[in-house]
Amino acid sequence: MALDHLSTTFAALADPTRRAILARLASGECSVTELADPFDMSMPAVSKHLRVLERAGLIARGRAAQWRPCRIEAGRLKEVAEWTEQYRAIWEQRFDRLDSYLQEQRVKEKRHGRNQRRK
Amino acid sequence: MALDHLSTTFAALADPTRRAILARLASGECSVTELADPFDMSMPAVSKHLRVLERAGLIARGRAAQWRPCRIEAGRLKEVAEWTEQYRAIWEQRFDRLDSYLQEQRVKEKRHGRNQRRK
Repeated sequence: MALDHLSTTFAALADPTRRAILARLASGECSVTELADPFDMSMPAVSKHLRVLERAGLIARGRAAQWRPCRIEAGRLKEVAEWTEQYRAIWEQRFDRLDSYLQEQRVKEKRHGRNQRRK
Repeated sequence: MALDHLSTTFAALADPTRRAILARLASGECSVTELADPFDMSMPAVSKHLRVLERAGLIARGRAAQWRPCRIEAGRLKEVAEWTEQYRAIWEQRFDRLDSYLQEQRVKEKRHGRNQRRK
């Protein structure tokens, strides 16, 4: 059976701290210590999140002896984008409908306002 | 504290059956029975998945007495697309790099082939 990458990716992304780690790594690779700093988290807690992200293929870690720099791996995010893209037509249609509804409401309100002034 | 929509959405999407249900609903609303049919799943199992999707705001259910039709709600998927979009620059850069690497390899192989023929 093929590995279900998408499920692993989505599960890894279902946490605000892990998404914040990805956002930090988007501006460049850094060490675990640098990552832990802004989050006010213990090193083991950060390491646990990093392991989840690494297993999901969302980050990779360097092999430098002293510090193992983390870097973002964007391939899996591309898969998420591609999966989501197939629903674009639906939300664009929905929001188009909402737009028409709001425009109709605005027209009705204007008419109502005009009628009120006539009274 | 604001509700963490994104985490709930990602957690709901971290399951192949739930994604298959969304794919089915993308082509139109249908009843729970119709949804359960292709998955060879019990009704309670399907209902459980539907509850997760509904809580995440990914689907909505009608109020018709006999059958409560399920329909896809694309607003949350739009949020996922917007979140993912901020990383586009990274994966495009990465794949550009991969492209350059593969092109370099191809040039090297050609050169190697030419040198081999000369020997």
